[in-house]
Amino acid sequence: MLKVAILGGSGYTGFELLRLLLSHPEVEVTAVTSERSAGLLISDTFLHCRNPHLKFESLNLKSLAKKADLFFLCLPHKASQETVAFLYNAGKKVIDLSADYRLKSARVYSEWYKIPHRYSPLLKKAVYGLPELYRKKIKKASIIANPGCYPTSAILGLAPIMGEDFVSTNTIIIDSKSGTSGAGRSPAQPFMFCEVNESVKAYAVTAHRHTPEIEQELSALKKENFKVIFTPHLIPMDRGILSTMYVPLRKKISLSNVQKLYHQFYRHEPFVRVLQNGRYPATKSVKSSNFCDISIFLDERSRRGKTLIIISAIDNLIKGASGTAVHNMNIMSGFEETAGLMSTPASP
Amino acid sequence: MLKVAILGGSGYTGFELLRLLLSHPEVEVTAVTSERSAGLLISDTFLHCRNPHLKFESLNLKSLAKKADLFFLCLPHKASQETVAFLYNAGKKVIDLSADYRLKSARVYSEWYKIPHRYSPLLKKAVYGLPELYRKKIKKASIIANPGCYPTSAILGLAPIMGEDFVSTNTIIIDSKSGTSGAGRSPAQPFMFCEVNESVKAYAVTAHRHTPEIEQELSALKKENFKVIFTPHLIPMDRGILSTMYVPLRKKISLSNVQKLYHQFYRHEPFVRVLQNGRYPATKSVKSSNFCDISIFLDERSRRGKTLIIISAIDNLIKGASGTAVHNMNIMSGFEETAGLMSTPASP
Amino acid sequence: MLKVAILGGSGYTGFELLRLLLSHPEVEVTAVTSERSAGLLISDTFLHCRNPHLKFESLNLKSLAKKADLFFLCLPHKASQETVAFLYNAGKKVIDLSADYRLKSARVYSEWYKIPHRYSPLLKKAVYGLPELYRKKIKKASIIANPGCYPTSAILGLAPIMGEDFVSTNTIIIDSKSGTSGAGRSPAQPFMFCEVNESVKAYAVTAHRHTPEIEQELSALKKENFKVIFTPHLIPMDRGILSTMYVPLRKKISLSNVQKLYHQFYRHEPFVRVLQNGRYPATKSVKSSNFCDISIFLDERSRRGKTLIIISAIDNLIKGASGTAVHNMNIMSGFEETAGLMSTPASP
Amino acid sequence: MLKVAILGGSGYTGFELLRLLLSHPEVEVTAVTSERSAGLLISDTFLHCRNPHLKFESLNLKSLAKKADLFFLCLPHKASQETVAFLYNAGKKVIDLSADYRLKSARVYSEWYKIPHRYSPLLKKAVYGLPELYRKKIKKASIIANPGCYPTSAILGLAPIMGEDFVSTNTIIIDSKSGTSGAGRSPAQPFMFCEVNESVKAYAVTAHRHTPEIEQELSALKKENFKVIFTPHLIPMDRGILSTMYVPLRKKISLSNVQKLYHQFYRHEPFVRVLQNGRYPATKSVKSSNFCDISIFLDERSRRGKTLIIISAIDNLIKGASGTAVHNMNIMSGFEETAGLMSTPASP
Repeated sequence: MLKVAILGGSGYTGFELLRLLLSHPEVEVTAVTSERSAGLLISDTFLHCRNPHLKFESLNLKSLAKKADLFFLCLPHKASQETVAFLYNAGKKVIDLSADYRLKSARVYSEWYKIPHRYSPLLKKAVYGLPELYRKKIKKASIIANPGCYPTSAILGLAPIMGEDFVSTNTIIIDSKSGTSGAGRSPAQPFMFCEVNESVKAYAVTAHRHTPEIEQELSALKKENFKVIFTPHLIPMDRGILSTMYVPLRKKISLSNVQKLYHQFYRHEPFVRVLQNGRYPATKSVKSSNFCDISIFLDERSRRGKTLIIISAIDNLIKGASGTAVHNMNIMSGFEETAGLMSTPASP
Repeated sequence: MLKVAILGGSGYTGFELLRLLLSHPEVEVTAVTSERSAGLLISDTFLHCRNPHLKFESLNLKSLAKKADLFFLCLPHKASQETVAFLYNAGKKVIDLSADYRLKSARVYSEWYKIPHRYSPLLKKAVYGLPELYRKKIKKASIIANPGCYPTSAILGLAPIMGEDFVSTNTIIIDSKSGTSGAGRSPAQPFMFCEVNESVKAYAVTAHRHTPEIEQELSALKKENFKVIFTPHLIPMDRGILSTMYVPLRKKISLSNVQKLYHQFYRHEPFVRVLQNGRYPATKSVKSSNFCDISIFLDERSRRGKTLIIISAIDNLIKGASGTAVHNMNIMSGFEETAGLMSTPASP
Repeated sequence: MLKVAILGGSGYTGFELLRLLLSHPEVEVTAVTSERSAGLLISDTFLHCRNPHLKFESLNLKSLAKKADLFFLCLPHKASQETVAFLYNAGKKVIDLSADYRLKSARVYSEWYKIPHRYSPLLKKAVYGLPELYRKKIKKASIIANPGCYPTSAILGLAPIMGEDFVSTNTIIIDSKSGTSGAGRSPAQPFMFCEVNESVKAYAVTAHRHTPEIEQELSALKKENFKVIFTPHLIPMDRGILSTMYVPLRKKISLSNVQKLYHQFYRHEPFVRVLQNGRYPATKSVKSSNFCDISIFLDERSRRGKTLIIISAIDNLIKGASGTAVHNMNIMSGFEETAGLMSTPASP
Repeated sequence: MLKVAILGGSGYTGFELLRLLLSHPEVEVTAVTSERSAGLLISDTFLHCRNPHLKFESLNLKSLAKKADLFFLCLPHKASQETVAFLYNAGKKVIDLSADYRLKSARVYSEWYKIPHRYSPLLKKAVYGLPELYRKKIKKASIIANPGCYPTSAILGLAPIMGEDFVSTNTIIIDSKSGTSGAGRSPAQPFMFCEVNESVKAYAVTAHRHTPEIEQELSALKKENFKVIFTPHLIPMDRGILSTMYVPLRKKISLSNVQKLYHQFYRHEPFVRVLQNGRYPATKSVKSSNFCDISIFLDERSRRGKTLIIISAIDNLIKGASGTAVHNMNIMSGFEETAGLMSTPASP
């Protein structure tokens, strides 16, 4: 059994990760930290926790380093910078769910996060943990920068065609709709029930921090630096991200050929489902699962040229965070890739 | 008191219209038809109905024509075609909330609605009932084609700039998110609570019937025929439409100049609120009201050229249907334009 | 025009009160206080506010006293104690929406609210502002203690039979289900969207502060002191309270006779609707209205004796707070009782 | 591997059962029937279905009988009567999720379900499948009448004290709040999103068919025939039942003693969690799990005697239907009781 620890286990992401790990056949959770819940028994919250003596504990890196071989970090960005460095230097494997090691450029990081990156040499060691793109590198990595929720939905939706010459990068639009769990568990007026319920609105237009992450990965696939327009919206539901992506085309293509590219690209992927022609992804169809559903549509009406409309759906807490973290662990540790992750979407 | 009748009063739109008319100072509702509820007292449903003897009745045009001077039609498309013609020929004023008289071209109508238009000469008589654009024509009209909900949100969002030369029509994208009341009241599996709740999905991609209506009106404003991409989404809430619109630009502009255009264009409009820079429209902010909230953003990051991002929010049952119908009646009848329509959004 | 002021106008109750008053034909809102929003224009929030210069201001009693003749207090309990006293001594009329003047006994007050009542002599001056019970006293009152939301639903549901000898007071059970707006607008983790959504739970079992208020009024009607069991539940919706009440019977009665008592009791009441036999109140049927819907059922199956099951539905923010406050003002000021309150429930 | 079949697999309960069985380590699903979806591949819906050739098929009992040894019936009541008989006579084990074999008395059955029971001799063979009460009988049974959702929540909440002499049966009240999935998947106007959302209401007051089932089991525990009052309510959420139960007492008891009885009664039960004093069950805390959470409160304020308030929470589709069905199968087949059922509640 692999010994793992979760640092920051009392937020929605940490909680979901613990839930997944507790039913994982190959791991033992040996420590879970939470400043908020330190001292409380984990089995009080998680009835079938296999270790009835395990308690939430405070974040003491020295003693934690002795308890596990692989660490999941669900800490806020900035706090992760140093913790990753400490654990890496202690010879541990780290899967960091914060944004701290996702951007390859320390300059871009400080531009969007408004703080310097104090461990920039480590950025080169970190692998962007999207298994569908970086499986081989993940296998050998010591530091995984687990992708953001919006970027996961966008990159998986666009990856199969980014290398194709029919794709114009002028201008790709990503219009995303997210459930409210993405906003975290800390009390804040805009996320109170009566504010979110029965409403939909956009936020952080042209300014969301997931934008450079999407651009970094799509640019790498396209082998060309370019910008995208990313507009997130808040939806009155707990979980799920639906991204509707508009891709302008440089030349004529047929819808069925594009669909074939997607089926081909993801043919061996256990968690990406390219839907049949005309079917619509819905966040409920992937709820509580590690699946990403994708559909491709072609607008042939608009004037010069045409536009591809790609729609993807994920569960933001699983495929968009904790599920992919477990997926990365499986790859790094030589476990079956799907171990602990094959639960069917729960609907309704 | 103006005598008015509602034909098709037991759906969500008809019900909302009745609600608005019952608190209107200048009208008397003399008949409400409903095949479903024929024979039931209206005051059973609407406690303070000022006519305690009024019952839902069956749709009998001959007898109805004697009861009112202005008719609101909340009938399904196709059924409205003939009813409008009958009432027009009987010298009545008609406000048709169906799609039957919105499209100027009978050919485009039959292409999208899959039936012929049997009263195409009347299409020229019908005025597209968006007061912000056609106030003068509405004043003299006998037939009003009341706009669709999505088109209202899109056209109001884009009208102030369509005549500007910095706007490129290649390709304008309208990504709309709608509450579920737009789907009507008839039972259907996809709109059952457990299917809609906790989910978001797109539908009718590249194929929604409101597309040609949006294109007709934007093309008229631009004085150039062009197509748009319109993608509707279903949101787990009762009411509201948020439209996020992406407009490519032909030349450089400043955000504040565009905002000035909007403030200028709507400066005398009682129901359109152009929000301050940086504020976000939310459907909850216009719930149960006749307001349309609009914000303008400018993306300056994307490669060649820039993109305007316009966001508008309306209540689909009021500004997107029954409220505008009352607004049209007010204009046609010389009432104060805002009569019966100034209720403040109810939040939460 | 009656000059009125709202003290504490930025919570959900204050906001709803302002909304109602802005469409009231007989009043002018001359001041609205809010520590949170002091200095902001009210017309920024309320577009059609008839006084475009009015701003949210800080709570300065001396200057406020000059601005209005009737004051609505939407302050937290405890803060209201002194403010009511000040305004009363200044010769103003006060409608206090807090709990501070509802309980006749200062001892009971301090037992449940854990603070002394420092103005207990004024308790005798205060009239419990439930118009269906105290219309005559309200007319002459200077201090109105506006009822709590749960008590309104419970007392209206039980009042018509409390004087009947078939009612046993051993033990009346009130099981209430409330939307989340009752919890107020301040951020708190238990009322975050992801905590409330998709869940239902009881809270404050045997310990909710509305219990003594219900008991005081029911005991007065019964002319006998007794206790009830009151269990509130939190429901994932914005507005509405449904109370299901179980009343044990001392002797046999027929359902239709009880229904007649209810129809008789409320026959002149504009806001209470006793539903037809077999119909169910639903919070959606009274949403955004000042109505209280009531149905009566009789369980004839349970062993010895029988049990009446009374169900009532109100909008907690209107009939359960601000609507009744306006109703009280109408009565105190000699306005038409229904002025500003006859909006039909908005559904969906 | 045990071969099992699901008859009626396309409703919410059948779907959830299939989801649970697909991740169960000891069974193979060899057939799933659905008139609606006959001919469609199951793996189209359930990606990781371990049998990629399995299709939804029509209900043909003769051919089905050869395919499996244990059958789950998710058919409507009445249809189940005959199917159970056929399979029983064919020597198969049957777990019937309908109501057809739950009531021991054919007379009571026909009184509530308005049809005769044509296989009443089989009623004696059927075991009421609530493992916490009938584990030993379930082990040897061939026909399991799987409990209803409301009865599960009520019986588990009351079982530990029914044998105690401090409990009065005059009159126990069960006030239940249920999510909407309990109403099934077939389209019906009252369960449309816009009807259920933002509303709560009671239904079937004094007349719900789960009443005799609750009475049968509580009477058996009490060794005395008595009636209860059961009031179900519809809540705007997908899953979950919260039952608030009011139990009058014959003599004084202490809360802590009652809590001890509960802890004692359920000490070996893997799926019942008696919460700590003062904690509240919430449906979200058991969502997507087979757990039943229970809390006990004591009202000491009400006049003569006192009242126990018991609150229980379950997921209606799992502990209230499919999870218990799997639990019964595990017991009948000698599998580990918790096999396939230990998923932690998913929250949010």
